[in-house]
Amino acid sequence: MTAAPNPAPSLIAIDWGTTNRRGYLLNREGIILDSYFDGDGLTNIRDGAYEASLKILAAPWVAQWGSLPILMSGMIGASTGWVDAGYCPVPVNSEGLSKELVCVSEEKNIWIVPGVRTLDNSGNPDVIRGEEVQSLAIGGYSDQLMVVAPGTHSKWIHIQDKSITGFTTFLTGDLFDAVLNHTIISVLNDQARVMNDDAFYRGVRAGFSEYQNLLHTLFSARTNVLFKNLLPTEVSDYLSGLLIGGEIGSGRSEVGMTDAVFVLIGASDLTERYKRAFGACEITAEIMNTNTVGKVYSGIARSAGLIG
Amino acid sequence: MTAAPNPAPSLIAIDWGTTNRRGYLLNREGIILDSYFDGDGLTNIRDGAYEASLKILAAPWVAQWGSLPILMSGMIGASTGWVDAGYCPVPVNSEGLSKELVCVSEEKNIWIVPGVRTLDNSGNPDVIRGEEVQSLAIGGYSDQLMVVAPGTHSKWIHIQDKSITGFTTFLTGDLFDAVLNHTIISVLNDQARVMNDDAFYRGVRAGFSEYQNLLHTLFSARTNVLFKNLLPTEVSDYLSGLLIGGEIGSGRSEVGMTDAVFVLIGASDLTERYKRAFGACEITAEIMNTNTVGKVYSGIARSAGLIG
Repeated sequence: MTAAPNPAPSLIAIDWGTTNRRGYLLNREGIILDSYFDGDGLTNIRDGAYEASLKILAAPWVAQWGSLPILMSGMIGASTGWVDAGYCPVPVNSEGLSKELVCVSEEKNIWIVPGVRTLDNSGNPDVIRGEEVQSLAIGGYSDQLMVVAPGTHSKWIHIQDKSITGFTTFLTGDLFDAVLNHTIISVLNDQARVMNDDAFYRGVRAGFSEYQNLLHTLFSARTNVLFKNLLPTEVSDYLSGLLIGGEIGSGRSEVGMTDAVFVLIGASDLTERYKRAFGACEITAEIMNTNTVGKVYSGIARSAGLIG
Repeated sequence: MTAAPNPAPSLIAIDWGTTNRRGYLLNREGIILDSYFDGDGLTNIRDGAYEASLKILAAPWVAQWGSLPILMSGMIGASTGWVDAGYCPVPVNSEGLSKELVCVSEEKNIWIVPGVRTLDNSGNPDVIRGEEVQSLAIGGYSDQLMVVAPGTHSKWIHIQDKSITGFTTFLTGDLFDAVLNHTIISVLNDQARVMNDDAFYRGVRAGFSEYQNLLHTLFSARTNVLFKNLLPTEVSDYLSGLLIGGEIGSGRSEVGMTDAVFVLIGASDLTERYKRAFGACEITAEIMNTNTVGKVYSGIARSAGLIG
């Protein structure tokens, strides 16, 4: 018989993003005692009313347990968020992040985890904000991980020995919407689409094998309809496959490593889609949940001395 | 003293595109005796009123010279145009095109030049329509040419011994508009831009050296503003450079040839921009006009027996 986790909460942690946010009530060890989800992401906060919005999230917990330290991550710490929490350079781990927390209110004990920055092959900056906590939550799984967080801006985050050592952003989701709705391809896209596996896989294979030639390969979403190799209802899935396949080709080439374990995190429909795409490219990628995110938040809070 | 060209017109040729069209009054040898330009491209023709629109173009010439054969090329022969003129496979030259002319009206002697089709490395179809005549107009200049026609859908057309042997379409211009106006990059783009050479060249170099990683490199148009390496007024030129540099990198790699002469054709502002981009990539590309396009039209018309 193991001891029951200590039920006394020590920390409120919030993953506060652009469109949604998720709050966690955590004990000292980062066990999630309760959680809360709503759509009050940054774009839904009017006139900078962050504190009022935070109160809505925290009120039931504070009513029951009294005032607790609050640790936030995600776009809430962007230059367009509540307080700009800046970016730590790679390599960085939980302890490194804990040293750079930015204080929103000393009195109310509210803190923000900084984002992480790196430089790409051209010397251009790249950034993550929110995914640093999520990816570190996977860190104990293997010494060498590539955490892939698909989305509007897909992130490939390289974790070695529980540190973030590098990452790359891909504009995949953002570009998918822009190309599907605002280029010549839009006139061929029949919105009455149904999920089409064959079109998706054909797109994945074309994107993966020709990732270095994406500016051209995108045109095949038009010409294949023109030559009746693709139905208008299949354009969306073909294009989705083309861009995800292109991301995988480009990402794997960028990474240049074959011994890393590929792990997918995020919304289940998108990670499922990516898992199938990785499979079509003959790369094994496992979907993992980020339930251990509480341990990362509590670890950072302990290192920073926010909790005992 | 050379003989004056025969002033008797033999043919009306029309390059009829999506947004504009240009008509030529040609003698038997393809000398341009007169020309006409207007904005009655396909998107401006209502209810399929092609014949009425053609009459406007041809009326002054017909009034003066009587009825003449009419030979058209461009999107007028697309599946969405007047009559679908189909596509010839590569390799093809003027004579090959002349064998596949599609008749709009035997009585009125109206014909359309087919487009050209090829297959890319993934086995996906690629097409040109209109550029086949324009690029063949350059054909006498060298035995081995890469004709680059920048635009919404940039075309790289390989000409060997006056035949089109292959080509590649790049979605460069289309993607530029979509990314600039419909992705995260739009919020950082200050429309009050002025032409910025430095930003353009930085974009070109990044796009050229990382063309195989475009899905990621696009994100640098955002992060460079975030880190104040780029002004919001410079985003447009940086992105333009990034995509054109990416096209040149991808195109040159696709081509895999170093001994071809690179020639730019098309609107002067865009070809100038491409010439500067090629220069920044240390590739010499000359701008050439397509004034000899008349000789291609008359050559096709003679081969097809439309004119004596």
